[in-house]
Parts: sequence; structure tokens; C-alpha cells
Amino acid sequence: MNEHIAPVALDRAYRLLNHGPTVLVSASHGGTDNVMAAAWACALDFSPPKVTVVLDKATRTRELVEQSGYFALQIPNLGQLELTYKAGTRSLHELPDKLAQCDIQLFRQEGFDTPLVAGCSAWLVCKLIPEPHNQATYDLFIGEVVAAWADDRVFRDGHWQFEQADSRWRSLHYIAGGHFYAIGDVAAVQEE
Amino acid sequence: MNEHIAPVALDRAYRLLNHGPTVLVSASHGGTDNVMAAAWACALDFSPPKVTVVLDKATRTRELVEQSGYFALQIPNLGQLELTYKAGTRSLHELPDKLAQCDIQLFRQEGFDTPLVAGCSAWLVCKLIPEPHNQATYDLFIGEVVAAWADDRVFRDGHWQFEQADSRWRSLHYIAGGHFYAIGDVAAVQEE
Repeated sequence: MNEHIAPVALDRAYRLLNHGPTVLVSASHGGTDNVMAAAWACALDFSPPKVTVVLDKATRTRELVEQSGYFALQIPNLGQLELTYKAGTRSLHELPDKLAQCDIQLFRQEGFDTPLVAGCSAWLVCKLIPEPHNQATYDLFIGEVVAAWADDRVFRDGHWQFEQADSRWRSLHYIAGGHFYAIGDVAAVQEE
Repeated sequence: MNEHIAPVALDRAYRLLNHGPTVLVSASHGGTDNVMAAAWACALDFSPPKVTVVLDKATRTRELVEQSGYFALQIPNLGQLELTYKAGTRSLHELPDKLAQCDIQLFRQEGFDTPLVAGCSAWLVCKLIPEPHNQATYDLFIGEVVAAWADDRVFRDGHWQFEQADSRWRSLHYIAGGHFYAIGDVAAVQEE
């Protein structure tokens, strides 16, 4: 295991998503693991922390989420730019070796069957809150975050440390057509 | 009117939100205008474009959205850092002159009653899609984007131009405690 992976208190887990990064969504069922990229993931509540994510009906990952009742969101970084793009543009339906083609290595944390993508900056394991109307009408899935971790080289003391970490740890923010932005400089307001 | 405000094609409106910026949410009803900041806004569909936004029950803006059936999301920028922070930490319930205290100036586009915040980088007017269960249970609101505009100094040809614009146009990405990041450098993958 990577000694830099540290638990994140659940009431601070929203901060991992608050700045709107593109995420990788992973899930597993019946021996099949998969990972896809998603730009449409968002925090939904502080405590207990909840998230939303949009999963298109064409994705294999969606099937695994519906079957297992669990998914993980993880925050990839600039060092995983190609991996993230490939994970978002290739489908396990067509490429049985998608994960290998994307250079994705998976690991699991003790007590959780949901696979996690090695090398990311943070991970949130989520239990699906079934909402059939949202899922069918909007492809919108809601999960409660049941565990979270971050790499302490880029997130510690409850805050991202992008300004102090190597630039390869910057989060990715996708637009379209292979065009991402990395997160940039800090802009702090003095609390009144 | 500002000659830099240009319409954005509806099927590209998702790109205004795709990189996860903190937004300002505005609404109006019965002669009352209000604006709040929100980090939890997200694209939900491409065409017709839809969005989600989380509006706490304590906010005056939520009442105006429920009463009018419309809201706008707009993308503030680094030049509006203090404005954005103030809009997210002060309530019209307690401060009748909140908008003046936040240095917010409003304008309206022809054909729409929803007020828009001057100086932002982009604006999306949304028609509420009533989903009472989501609104009551999760504070989650869904809207269909019915019109969108952007300032052509920072968004044109269907893409953000952060790398070519003055740094004051960078979008804001809130974490907590007055701690924002500005969007950073482009990271492009060659389409295969």
C-alpha cells in the first residue's frame, strides 16, 4: 500500500469535490471492474456527505453501479491526463481490456469491494441511494460517501495543497474535445 | 449594454459549467432580486441543456426560484473574488441591502425577467423543472437552460480562452473558509 494515502474525515469529504474537478467513477460487480471519466459529478451535502454523478445509459460502469449499489469517485491529476482522457472515451462494452489500454491499475481498501484507481489524488467510496426516477429520467445518481482518503502530498489538514505540491498533482477540469484545464493558483479572501 | 456579451449556442452551454466553477445564482420574484454564490452547480445534460444546483432552505434565493420558476447561473471571475465571497456569506434575510453591500450590479437581457450579474464571464438562464422530492429531500434543483451568453473576451468559438485572456477572467473554484483556486493552465490531449 501507498503510505501517503490518508483517511479524510467524512465531514470534510465535500472539499475533495468542491472545486469541480473531473472525476473517475469506478464500480465492480460479479468479478467485473470498470472505470470511466465524468465531468458531471458534484457535492450534494456536507454531513452525512452526499454526491451526485451523471452516468449515461450506454456506460458499463452504470450497470455495475446499479448491480452492486456502490461506486467510487476519485480525483485524477495532471500526471494522469492521458489515462483520464482514455477512460472517458473508450468503453468496456467494446474493449474488454479497456483498463489495461488506459494504463489503469486498481487497488482496494480494507473493508470495501469497490475498486480504486492507483495514483489519484483522492478517493470517495459511495453507497448508492436508489432514486429510480432520477436515474431513469436524468441519468442522475446520488450516493452517500461512506469512506474517503487523499494522498497527503496534495491534500492534508482538510485542505488541498496544490500551491505547495508538484504540478503533476493539479486536478483536471474537462471542457470538450480533449481540452482540459489544470486547477491554478490560490485566491484567498480574508474571513471577516 | 456591454458589446462583449455574445450568445452561446444552447448545445454548447454545458461547456460553460463543465470545468466545475463556483457560480452565482440569481432569481427575482415580486420585485425582489437576489444573488447567492454556490459551489454545487453542475451540468446535467447536453441538449436540451440541463443543470443541477443545490439551494439550501435557508436562502432567500431559493424562495425566489420556487416562486418565479426561473433562475440564472453565472460564472464569476477572479476580478469578482470579493463579490463572490460576500454573495455566498451574507443573506438578504438579514441584510436588505445585500446586493449593494456585495457591489453587485444587475442587468436583464431582452425577453427574460431573471436578473443577471454584470461583470461575469458567462450567464445561463434556466427554467425550473419542478421535482418536489429532490427539492425537499436533497435541496437539489434541476433547470433547463433556455438562453446563454458569454463575454467574448474569455469564451468564444465554443471554448473558454483562459490562456489568452487577462488573468482577471479566470474562473473561481471554492474550497472552504475563504479559500478559492483560480482555473489554471490548459492541458490538451490530441484527439485520436
